[in-house]
Amino acid sequence: MNNPVPHGGQPEDSPALRQLYADFESNHLNPLWTQISGLMPRHPKPHAVPHVWKWATLYPLAQQSGELVPVGRGGERRAIGLANPGLGGEAYVSPTLWCAIQYLGAHETAPEHRHSQNAFRFVVEGEGVWTVVNGDPVRMSRGDFLITPGWCFHGHQNVRDAPMAWIDGLDIPFSYTNDVGFFELGPDELSDKTTPDFSRSERLWCHPGLRPLSGLQNTIASPVGAYRWEHTDRALSEQLHLEDEGYPGTVAPGHAAVRYTNPTTGGDVMPTIRAEFHRLRPGVSTATRRDVGTRVFQVFEGRGGVVMGGTTHALEKGDIFVVPSWVPWSLQAESQFDLFHFSDAPIMERLHFDRTSIEDRK
Amino acid sequence: MNNPVPHGGQPEDSPALRQLYADFESNHLNPLWTQISGLMPRHPKPHAVPHVWKWATLYPLAQQSGELVPVGRGGERRAIGLANPGLGGEAYVSPTLWCAIQYLGAHETAPEHRHSQNAFRFVVEGEGVWTVVNGDPVRMSRGDFLITPGWCFHGHQNVRDAPMAWIDGLDIPFSYTNDVGFFELGPDELSDKTTPDFSRSERLWCHPGLRPLSGLQNTIASPVGAYRWEHTDRALSEQLHLEDEGYPGTVAPGHAAVRYTNPTTGGDVMPTIRAEFHRLRPGVSTATRRDVGTRVFQVFEGRGGVVMGGTTHALEKGDIFVVPSWVPWSLQAESQFDLFHFSDAPIMERLHFDRTSIEDRK
Amino acid sequence: MNNPVPHGGQPEDSPALRQLYADFESNHLNPLWTQISGLMPRHPKPHAVPHVWKWATLYPLAQQSGELVPVGRGGERRAIGLANPGLGGEAYVSPTLWCAIQYLGAHETAPEHRHSQNAFRFVVEGEGVWTVVNGDPVRMSRGDFLITPGWCFHGHQNVRDAPMAWIDGLDIPFSYTNDVGFFELGPDELSDKTTPDFSRSERLWCHPGLRPLSGLQNTIASPVGAYRWEHTDRALSEQLHLEDEGYPGTVAPGHAAVRYTNPTTGGDVMPTIRAEFHRLRPGVSTATRRDVGTRVFQVFEGRGGVVMGGTTHALEKGDIFVVPSWVPWSLQAESQFDLFHFSDAPIMERLHFDRTSIEDRK
Amino acid sequence: MNNPVPHGGQPEDSPALRQLYADFESNHLNPLWTQISGLMPRHPKPHAVPHVWKWATLYPLAQQSGELVPVGRGGERRAIGLANPGLGGEAYVSPTLWCAIQYLGAHETAPEHRHSQNAFRFVVEGEGVWTVVNGDPVRMSRGDFLITPGWCFHGHQNVRDAPMAWIDGLDIPFSYTNDVGFFELGPDELSDKTTPDFSRSERLWCHPGLRPLSGLQNTIASPVGAYRWEHTDRALSEQLHLEDEGYPGTVAPGHAAVRYTNPTTGGDVMPTIRAEFHRLRPGVSTATRRDVGTRVFQVFEGRGGVVMGGTTHALEKGDIFVVPSWVPWSLQAESQFDLFHFSDAPIMERLHFDRTSIEDRK
Repeated sequence: MNNPVPHGGQPEDSPALRQLYADFESNHLNPLWTQISGLMPRHPKPHAVPHVWKWATLYPLAQQSGELVPVGRGGERRAIGLANPGLGGEAYVSPTLWCAIQYLGAHETAPEHRHSQNAFRFVVEGEGVWTVVNGDPVRMSRGDFLITPGWCFHGHQNVRDAPMAWIDGLDIPFSYTNDVGFFELGPDELSDKTTPDFSRSERLWCHPGLRPLSGLQNTIASPVGAYRWEHTDRALSEQLHLEDEGYPGTVAPGHAAVRYTNPTTGGDVMPTIRAEFHRLRPGVSTATRRDVGTRVFQVFEGRGGVVMGGTTHALEKGDIFVVPSWVPWSLQAESQFDLFHFSDAPIMERLHFDRTSIEDRK
Repeated sequence: MNNPVPHGGQPEDSPALRQLYADFESNHLNPLWTQISGLMPRHPKPHAVPHVWKWATLYPLAQQSGELVPVGRGGERRAIGLANPGLGGEAYVSPTLWCAIQYLGAHETAPEHRHSQNAFRFVVEGEGVWTVVNGDPVRMSRGDFLITPGWCFHGHQNVRDAPMAWIDGLDIPFSYTNDVGFFELGPDELSDKTTPDFSRSERLWCHPGLRPLSGLQNTIASPVGAYRWEHTDRALSEQLHLEDEGYPGTVAPGHAAVRYTNPTTGGDVMPTIRAEFHRLRPGVSTATRRDVGTRVFQVFEGRGGVVMGGTTHALEKGDIFVVPSWVPWSLQAESQFDLFHFSDAPIMERLHFDRTSIEDRK
Repeated sequence: MNNPVPHGGQPEDSPALRQLYADFESNHLNPLWTQISGLMPRHPKPHAVPHVWKWATLYPLAQQSGELVPVGRGGERRAIGLANPGLGGEAYVSPTLWCAIQYLGAHETAPEHRHSQNAFRFVVEGEGVWTVVNGDPVRMSRGDFLITPGWCFHGHQNVRDAPMAWIDGLDIPFSYTNDVGFFELGPDELSDKTTPDFSRSERLWCHPGLRPLSGLQNTIASPVGAYRWEHTDRALSEQLHLEDEGYPGTVAPGHAAVRYTNPTTGGDVMPTIRAEFHRLRPGVSTATRRDVGTRVFQVFEGRGGVVMGGTTHALEKGDIFVVPSWVPWSLQAESQFDLFHFSDAPIMERLHFDRTSIEDRK
Repeated sequence: MNNPVPHGGQPEDSPALRQLYADFESNHLNPLWTQISGLMPRHPKPHAVPHVWKWATLYPLAQQSGELVPVGRGGERRAIGLANPGLGGEAYVSPTLWCAIQYLGAHETAPEHRHSQNAFRFVVEGEGVWTVVNGDPVRMSRGDFLITPGWCFHGHQNVRDAPMAWIDGLDIPFSYTNDVGFFELGPDELSDKTTPDFSRSERLWCHPGLRPLSGLQNTIASPVGAYRWEHTDRALSEQLHLEDEGYPGTVAPGHAAVRYTNPTTGGDVMPTIRAEFHRLRPGVSTATRRDVGTRVFQVFEGRGGVVMGGTTHALEKGDIFVVPSWVPWSLQAESQFDLFHFSDAPIMERLHFDRTSIEDRK
């Protein structure tokens, strides 16, 4: 919107016009006709750009932060946000979403707080940390997807002798831009320091198709604290086995995928963030598509690439990439290719701005 | 409604009144004022009565049927319906619900058909039968809850040398009374005679909190063919363990319970039938309550009793009882007491006729 | 279901079989295989039959009731129910619905009560009565549709020197069969004897597209007490004018129709009853269709006919007819033909038993 | 977020830390710990500020634009956006909403186009313009509220000899920031130049509580093109009359209010914008409240004031003011005080960020 290019239908320059524009400015007004093509483009023209952050770069920087930066009250978290190169240096992976690598050293604790922003964590490697969500300690292990919905107290502790890193996803940019966020400090000490194998939320809720009678009220966000890798892996494997046996199950040939859901509604885990896991067979590539909204992926395992806006990026374990709104993209698998995925699709769908265009395969 | 008792506000008998009533009858009319107290009672006064059917009676009669009655096209199923003593001999466990014991001899097959009526099966003992639902063979084993939603083709085969019995629940009375049922014969041969450990529906859907991307459309009934005992048992145990540890989870002290749900919505498995499983610790009794609608239970394991309308009935494994609308009831556990439960609660709730009254404990 | 005709797949008669059947009966059991073709027909085979009640018959019988039968506490209402000839004399127009002509003499009052059953009134002629619903007096005039949702107190008073008759529709058969009804007497005197032109419910709610901020909670039934003929007539006229001008609006050529709705949801006025008004241009006939569930019509104005199950019935003002489940039907207009319509479609749709078949026109 | 103030828990400055921060920057990373207090404040701290735009200023500037600026293809609309003084000069009344005065000279036409952005118009004075929405000409008159939901073609024509101005409201800032907008030019000529008193949408939909059978599918936005002042005024008057008579109806004493709704759902007219009309009796002031999200008002008639963040602003007819997120506000009426109101509440509610705090009155 900087330097709006004048275009058809513009008034001729004149002293009177300049005075009018000056009067607009001094009265806090701004005309549409000089800027409509920028403000209301033919299709989304995001400032955010496609970008890949390499795990091989991220992890060492997180390690150095572990040495130089304390974790504790005030800074709250040792989290390093991915700053989309198109967004002026802000720690925004897109206009709506935040994605960060968080690092917790051996025996460190991140104190409890809560906020309106919805948060999740995904663990690409490591173990030893428990996140305590509303007093319920949740083990974090490789492949697990863990949620901290808005306004739940939460803190983390690392009980091992080795550090651990994971990625965080939140709706911080959306909350900041639209002025919706509240924040509250919790107790300095973790409210529960035990380290059970399974959280109480899982023990109540993670029995397929079964709902506790003590939990019949639907909840805005999923009551499930952790979605374990063991289940995700098996679900994906079964889809591919079904395909091998000639039955439906995969979302496209050679492409298995699951969405993490709120069992009280069958819908997305949180009101602003969708999360999924995708597995491609070696050699498979997905149809090129464009979507309204932001899509973020992290490679969990395997080698492959992503084509974004016509440019191919090679990908390895841990690499994170963002596809801004309406940028064409497709995935390509060299080996079996496992990717964790999140997006702001619930925002787009609830406000009916969602739109997708899928390119015909030749 | 037979013999409506005249009451206050009635006209005086006269030849003119008798002529009027005769004219009503010959013109297919019937006045409200003579029958309102029967038609519109102060609270539900069901014709159905509380009743217990003993497994020790049911099972031998089913066995004899196995010897005397063929199963096959025409009769379709060797199912013996529970006929509520208040409902004139019809095979109605209540005005809305059907409950039957079905029996399949060694190596017998029940042919495929489909109908508007929603159906489920619950297995109190035995194994060896596969039900094939829309071409998907589903193993039936002790403790499993299996559904056949309206208009799904289904047949059964027993692959063992021993017979097997289970209970069926359907909305046949509701469908019959309200004239909503369609019925269609399927192929004479089962569409799939394989006997896999897990149905394809389970392989796609029974990963807690995970939804296949190939199944994002919500479905009227659950896409899950079988809810396995292993999961039900574990869910109930965890609730009781949580209670022991001082955390919420049970629905009342000593009373664990789960509802079987449609994972695409979090709601009931089928539009007309709710199904749950309850476990009471030894010595626990539930609060006396009244509910609008029909409640049916089958004892799965343990000893105890039910008080219905002030009368106590002792219960053992396999026994089935019905609580008609607005009859007060409570359960009493001698041993650990496991009960399968189903009801017409979705009908009552969707039409907003549901009402419950729970008696205060002294 | 009486005299279930034995059919294919039946066991051969034998003393053992007779003993088995006797044991079934004494143990309150009833086998499926002898009755499945009756209980679960290929398509709905209603006991209710198509029938027309002539206003020319109904009204004089209501008048005679006015002379012979008091209205007051006990009998509660001078309402004469239409008894479907197929339903054994019960005052059921169908298995789900009740329809009656109610008659209130000059200066008579029907006392207040409330019940779970949902009720409406439609006025084919006359005026002078106010129905008081939860303390809000609602004028009843020709062409008006008025609702009394379940559990609202209501009574009626006629303030004129002439009697007035109208039709009542309720879900009494459904409530009675399924044991869901509660009933409570209200004050003997009407709670508000004023006779305003418009009810308070209309003054709050009947401004198109506008919702009072004091009424933001959605309600199970419509908060609108009266839907006035003036609005219905204009809505239908506009649809036909739009058709004349070449624009969409009618539901079929020459066929205007509106549904009465709950403005808090856009859905049906009550959870069990749908109400509509239809207008056909002279000479128009509707496509022959079958629907699951009951359809009832009353002619409001004009001459025409209905074909039900292949038989044509001539119709005049005030005539009421019922189309039982799955009976083919179509309307035929001689003059402009105005019909009020109600059905149990919300029951069928909420329980997903709805099905419609429309015959192709040649 | 500029100049994030370092706070507790920050690392000590060192060459290594500076190198780390430089490495962050060159790798498109940005740490949370230096900026969390700005990004995630204790409560919303909007950059937008409370502001009042005076109609006495707006209208003359619009008039001058009418002389100097053509309206036509390219600039598309002679609309002058209100630029919140806290938002850097952008034509954003808030981070989510756009509000502009639009001016159309005698016999001018604004050409047709469509866009994803949802739009409405509200007319504080004047007449003579028809807006053509998807081919349906809609008269614009004083007090009318008119909608153009996302992706509907629309253009305007002024058929009189005098100019006309009105306000436009859209979700342009939200669409621009989040990259969701599409835009398409329509025909150069208006698709329908007739000037009917009522749009076809009104003729189909504006009959209270009645829904055309040709319109049974729910729509994302309201199918109603215009909400007429005559209905709004009457609805508000009736609420105050009911209050005078001792009945509920107003939202608070002396405060009548209606929400414009989508009759197919009872919900907001469009997925991102809520619109209401409020009327205060002379002397009434509203409780001070804070809301998450943006609230905009235009005075339609009367004199009064608004207190925002403790500062009182006097208000006259046509004045427009904005209340940013979480700023405390209350209205004060000197005369009868009529205000049109719109907000982004549907965004906040659908994403579950809505929160309101109402101050207790002493």
